[in-house]
This record gives sequence, structure tokens and C-alpha cells, in this order.
Amino acid sequence: MFKLITISSIVAVAAIGSGLVIYRLHLVPEKPELDLQKWWGIGMKPREEDTSIRIFNIDFNDTMIQDLKQRLRNHRPFTKPLDGIQSEYGINTKYLDTILSYWLERYDFKKRAEHLNRYSHYKTRIQGLDIHFIRETPKVKDLKVLPLLLLHGWPSSSKEFDKIIPMLSSKRSNRDFVFEVIAADLPGFGFSEGTNKPGLNPVQIGIMMRNLMKRLGFDKFYVQGGDWGSQCATHMVTLFPDEILGFHTNMPFSSRLVSSVKMLMGSLVPSYAVDPRYVDRIYPLGNLLSSLIKESGYFHIQATKPDTIGVSLTDSPAGLAAYIIEKMGVVSNRDQVNTPHSGIENLPLDDVLDTITIVWANNCIVTSSRLYAEAFASPEVYIIHNIPTPVPTGVINFKYEVLYQPDWILKDKFPNLVSSNTLDIGGHFAALHTPQILVDDIFSATAAFINFNKRNLS
Amino acid sequence: MFKLITISSIVAVAAIGSGLVIYRLHLVPEKPELDLQKWWGIGMKPREEDTSIRIFNIDFNDTMIQDLKQRLRNHRPFTKPLDGIQSEYGINTKYLDTILSYWLERYDFKKRAEHLNRYSHYKTRIQGLDIHFIRETPKVKDLKVLPLLLLHGWPSSSKEFDKIIPMLSSKRSNRDFVFEVIAADLPGFGFSEGTNKPGLNPVQIGIMMRNLMKRLGFDKFYVQGGDWGSQCATHMVTLFPDEILGFHTNMPFSSRLVSSVKMLMGSLVPSYAVDPRYVDRIYPLGNLLSSLIKESGYFHIQATKPDTIGVSLTDSPAGLAAYIIEKMGVVSNRDQVNTPHSGIENLPLDDVLDTITIVWANNCIVTSSRLYAEAFASPEVYIIHNIPTPVPTGVINFKYEVLYQPDWILKDKFPNLVSSNTLDIGGHFAALHTPQILVDDIFSATAAFINFNKRNLS
Repeated sequence: MFKLITISSIVAVAAIGSGLVIYRLHLVPEKPELDLQKWWGIGMKPREEDTSIRIFNIDFNDTMIQDLKQRLRNHRPFTKPLDGIQSEYGINTKYLDTILSYWLERYDFKKRAEHLNRYSHYKTRIQGLDIHFIRETPKVKDLKVLPLLLLHGWPSSSKEFDKIIPMLSSKRSNRDFVFEVIAADLPGFGFSEGTNKPGLNPVQIGIMMRNLMKRLGFDKFYVQGGDWGSQCATHMVTLFPDEILGFHTNMPFSSRLVSSVKMLMGSLVPSYAVDPRYVDRIYPLGNLLSSLIKESGYFHIQATKPDTIGVSLTDSPAGLAAYIIEKMGVVSNRDQVNTPHSGIENLPLDDVLDTITIVWANNCIVTSSRLYAEAFASPEVYIIHNIPTPVPTGVINFKYEVLYQPDWILKDKFPNLVSSNTLDIGGHFAALHTPQILVDDIFSATAAFINFNKRNLS
Repeated sequence: MFKLITISSIVAVAAIGSGLVIYRLHLVPEKPELDLQKWWGIGMKPREEDTSIRIFNIDFNDTMIQDLKQRLRNHRPFTKPLDGIQSEYGINTKYLDTILSYWLERYDFKKRAEHLNRYSHYKTRIQGLDIHFIRETPKVKDLKVLPLLLLHGWPSSSKEFDKIIPMLSSKRSNRDFVFEVIAADLPGFGFSEGTNKPGLNPVQIGIMMRNLMKRLGFDKFYVQGGDWGSQCATHMVTLFPDEILGFHTNMPFSSRLVSSVKMLMGSLVPSYAVDPRYVDRIYPLGNLLSSLIKESGYFHIQATKPDTIGVSLTDSPAGLAAYIIEKMGVVSNRDQVNTPHSGIENLPLDDVLDTITIVWANNCIVTSSRLYAEAFASPEVYIIHNIPTPVPTGVINFKYEVLYQPDWILKDKFPNLVSSNTLDIGGHFAALHTPQILVDDIFSATAAFINFNKRNLS
């Protein structure tokens, strides 16, 4: 009898306790009041802002090219990889030398700039910073034209969308819409100006990107992103649900507390928590963690000492190339770390070198790396992460993406997850690696967004 | 009645469980069989080894100096610190520029080399690698001369002991002994050759350093170390307790599993676990952890991708200086991270620049950084960490040392802890920062070692 009472008391207390925990985990904080016109430029905000939109042309100028080539020719001999080691200790310096020779002797700076200039480039001042973007308006008749903002991550720029822009703005047989693409460089990335003030985190960048779209006359639009671009867009759809018609991401992630708890609990019953085909993308958590630790040294140093690591990367193009290539390679296929190229050969070399050249020419490795520090410095980021968004969302999970969450966890943050696709190929730099698949998915997700909005707005 | 039985069963099970856990935690593994003559040189081990001891002179040659100065003059403009930021995002690049100007214009390479050459330098081949060391034999009469091996850490070399060598080899009024100092460069550090084979971890380096001492004719000796030098020495006293007469360390650490558990448990009763004066060196663990995370980005990247980060640091002296200065500064006084110099002004500038120049001139940033990767790659390291050593041990805890453990936890690894000193000043680079205090402590600890050995060996 006593035993029964004891057991039932324990069960009751446990139930009430778990109930309270679950209730607390699902609590949604209030949206913080944010200044939507915060000034990130040098000095004080002027009384009247420059709202002009200026045509911009990418130029890899001779002084930059000569200096870069001089530094590459003059690089100090690298330490050879250890016996029997491919890329397990980081970049294979023998392989690196072949890439650097190509950059020095065969990469055609002028032609590549010309190639980048096939799109219409602009700059405009948003909250004190010159923001660079590509705007491609499709030349089509009898089709809906939907504005789509594309947001890249580190160490990219709008250049990452190079291959997909024409695919997005071209008519397809089975769709009655095409996209007008706005591909922006995040502040401090590519040709966009960096700030001289602390605090420009992904939430604040999200606000800037929304203001860019307003400047261009888009009061309602779609957004697509990967890496930090996906983070910024995730904040945008949380802050401006009435302005964004749909969100497509190739790096979906719910940072809600409840989602982390679910991922942890899932390790007790992995094949129940995740489609058995994709279980090994999360579980056992020990494997995931050890692979994340192995590959996140750059993240750690950028999140804590971006200004330190930036000095050598600012000064040595060989070092900058090594640093970027190693990471772009591993996240394209982490199973190839025991090859000399460590995954980078999944991406076209000229595209990789465009990316590195843009970082070098704009000297933006420090300003772009600081985003890792800012992302963890302010409580507003955590608060906004914890608020779900009603915006219809579509996700595509490529095989070697760094993070994976099953739909039922993603729905904590994106309850209106109307499209989801998980693949056994591809990696983190989807727009360069598997552009056609990415674009197909953006089209089909957008069709789902349109249906969702029809049902819910009518 | 049932309740009582239930409670007593629970208590009994808990007691047996805890007992088992405590028993298991204290289990000492068997010493693994290790090849004490493992070959780390290029190619195969030759039939007959070169055991000669060659005189060596440090030379900063003109080609190196001119190339270095050319690179410093030619460094690309750095990104300025953010408004209001001193060193919170890493090195302050405005401050860095003043240091680089000094290196370029006022640091006297030739004089500094001459200064380093005031000691007797040698090289000898140990297990296939040329090992550099200083050997200073005191010119004294009627005193015992005790052989003392000094082992430095990253990014140092035997140069770190520069100031303390003459203090150690000079007669003191209250002691009847002085030291014959052997200060060695770890393989891959300073003027010592790096290996081309994976696996040269702190255990293996410990074996090499013991073989160096044997080569010099010392079958029994004392050892002192900080940073990785302390780790290597910790392994040496575990592997060769009969050959080492005493171990002094300014970075003592027990990596035994039971010690980690004790540190964790201590967080429940901090002021019971640690002398209240030093509680804040460990507890709350959250603070310690967040400070370790903030400062360990370099550690993370070196432990995972040393070859990547090494490319830029090999190619840019400005970048190498930034990378080393930031870390040497913070570990000298982590409370000064909100100053432009971030702690580096606790150390004499010429000593800091000697260290950086030695790394640059020997191009050893990659070989030295790889030690972080090796230290976690092999089970032998963990096994040997878990074996206590009977060698009498003396520790000095400086205020800003990265790690701190109270004596009762240190005794898990060093049961014969015969000397312990905890100070409210000083930092990680004790031999450069507070040389006199360090030397005083080495003398008094050694007196305690002699007493201990008299009692126990007689």
C-alpha cells in the first residue's frame, strides 16, 4: 500500500514536473523592440540619408592583381604534409601549391570580372553602409514575376549565386512564375561595406536586408539563404512575417531551446526521432559532436578572435586561399578529408577562386569573420531565435550539410513547413555544387508557398 | 515499513554504486609497452646512429632578416579595431602596428642573436631528429651540481629560459647546490628539427627528452616545465620514475579521470574544495569554461587543422606576430583584454620578439602547432595520464596560469607533492614574467626533493 502510494506520488510529481518543463520550453518570448534604422556607418547618422541606387561594376584592378601575384610568387615554402597524411591535419600543402599555381598563372582575373559583370550590379547606402547587390529582372511575358532575395554566407558573396540567377529568372514549362533576383552581399562581405561599430549581428543584418528590399520597392518578397544567409533570413521571417511571402533554405535550423532538448532526447530512440535513412546525420550525437569539433576550429577562432586571425589572412593570399579552400572542401564532402583535395574538387575551381579573389580584393576577411563573434554577443539573437515564424517555409537538406534536423523539430521554429526535401548528395555550397537541384527545389517550394498563402490570406 | 525498506535499499544500492564508481576511477592502468628508440627521422632507422654532440650557434642571417623586413614593410593595411574595442575581438591592430614598427626598425637581430649565444648551444641527433639545447655548467666549488632539464611550451623554445639560466647556475647563500641547466627545444620547436611522421605526441617527446639526457650522461636528473613542457615532463616522471629525482612545474595538472570528477563535484561546495582565496580560479565552473572557450580558439584550430592555419602564419610575419602576441598577452594577464596591449606589456618586448623571430626564422609554426593535434590522437597519452607518479613534485601556481587545481586534486597524479606555492601575481610565461620568483621556487622545491629522496631512498 505504502509502496503504491510512493510510486503514484513519484509518477505524479514526475508528470507535473515534465509538464512544467515542456510548458516552459514552449514559452514564446515577446519580440524585442528593435531600432529598424540603426546607424552602422562612420560617425553620426546624418539628417538626410543618401538613398540613391548606383550602378556598380566589378573591377579586379591591375595594382591589386600585380600585388597579389607578387605575394603568391614570393610565398614562403610550406611545411609538407606528414607521411601518409592527406588532409587530416588541414590543407594538403602539396595540393595547395597546384591551386596557387593555377591562381597565379591560369586564373584569368579580367575575364572572371567580366563574367561576374554579366549581371546588373548596384550599390546603395543602407543605414550608413554601402550595400552591393545584383538585380536581375527577367524579360518574360504573361508570367508572374516574384521578387526573391538571395542571401549567402561565409566566406561567400552574391557571387555564390552566379550559376542559379539565370535559372531562377528563366521561364519553366510547368510554372506560371519566374523570379526577379536580388542577390545582396551581406555588410562586411564581398563588395558591401563593413561596419566600424560592434553589434552588427545576424538579426541586425536581417533588418538591413529588409530595408534594402524596401529601398528597391519590394514591400513583399521571398527570401532564400544558406549558412549565415539562412540565419539572417530566419530572423527576417521572425521579425517581418507580413512582408515575407515564403522562405526557402538549404541550411534550415531551429535554434529554439525546445528543439535542442528534442535532439538530445532523440538520441534515446534515434530511429523513431529521424527517418532511418538519415539517422546518421545526427545520431549517435557523439559522432556528430566529434565531427563538429574536428571541423569548427575556424568557427571558434572567428567567434572569439576574428581580429587576430584576420591579420595573417589579410597579409597572405596563399594563407587566405588555404584557409578558405580547406573549409569549402570539407563542408562539400566531409568523407573526403582523407584525399589531397579534401572535397574542394566538388566545386568548380574558378568559382572557388572567384570567392577567394573577392575576399582578397575587398580585404574583407576580418569584417566577414567578425559576424561569428557578433552572432553570440547579444541577447536579442537568442530571443528572436526562440520565436516561431508563421511564414511558409521550404527546406532542402543536402547530404553533407553541416547541420540536420528532421521536419518535426524544424517545425518548432517553422510551423508552416510546407516543403521539405532530403537528398543523398550535395553539400553546403549548394548553389555552386548542385545548382540545378537547388533551383528546382526553390521553384517547387515557391509553388507551395503560393498555395499556402492563397489558402491562408483569402 | 515498506517505505523504510525501500529507502534503505536505495541507500545501499547508491552506496555500492558510488563505491564501484570511486573504485573504478582510482584504477591505475598498466604502463603500455613503448618503443624507447622509435625513429622520427626521414626514411628508415640507420644501422648506426650519429651520436655526436655538435656546437651550435644561433644566427639570424641577412637573407632571412631582409626578407622578413621586406614582408613587414609590405604588409597590407590591417582592419582597424571596432569603435570602443581594445582587444576584445583579438589583437588590437593599431597597437600591433607599433610593435611591428619596433620589430622592423629597432629590434636588433644581430645583437639579440649574440645575446642568445652567451650560453653554450649544441645539437645532437635523438631518434632521427636534430635536437637543439643549451647546456650551462656552473663554475662553482664545494657545491653539489644538480642536472636540471628545462622544458618549454608553445610557441617558445629554450629561449624562454634565457633569464633564469644564470640564476639557476649561480650560488645562493642558503643552498648547498646549484644547477647544471640543460634547456632543450622540443622537436619541431625553435632550432630543433620537426618530424615528418604522425604520432610525435607529448609522451613520445618525453621519451626523446629522456634519451637526450642519457646522451649527455645524466642517468638521474631533475626536470622543470611549463605548458607543453610540463605535459612532456609529467609523462617522463610517469614513465621513468627511477631516473628523475624531482619534478617542478609552473603548470601542474592532473589529467586523471578521478581528478576531473573531483573538480566537477567541487562545484557543489567550492569553498570546501579550494582554499577560499583561490576559489575563483576554478569556480563557478561556468566562468572558467567561458573564459577557456574565449581563449582557446587557437588551441582548437591547432588541434584539428594545424596545417591550414600554418600556411598564412608561415607566409606573413605580421600575422605570425599578431597570432603569438595575442596569446602570450592574454595568458600573462587575462584581466587586461580590454586594454590595447591585452597583457603583452607584462613581458619584455625584446623577449617576445626573440620568440617570434625564432619561430619565423626556423619556419616552425606548423611543426610546433601539430603537437596540439598529436596530444589528442593517441590512446597512450590518456593511459599514461591516468598513472600516478612516485617522483617528488613541486608546483607553483601563478595567478593568471590557464589551469589551476588545488593540491588535494593534484595528488591524484602526484602523490608525493612535497612543495606547493600559490601566488597572487604572475602568469603563464613565468620564466619571462617573474623569473626571480620562479627560480626561488625551483630552489626551494629542489631542497624538498632532496629531503624526500634522502628519507625514501635511504
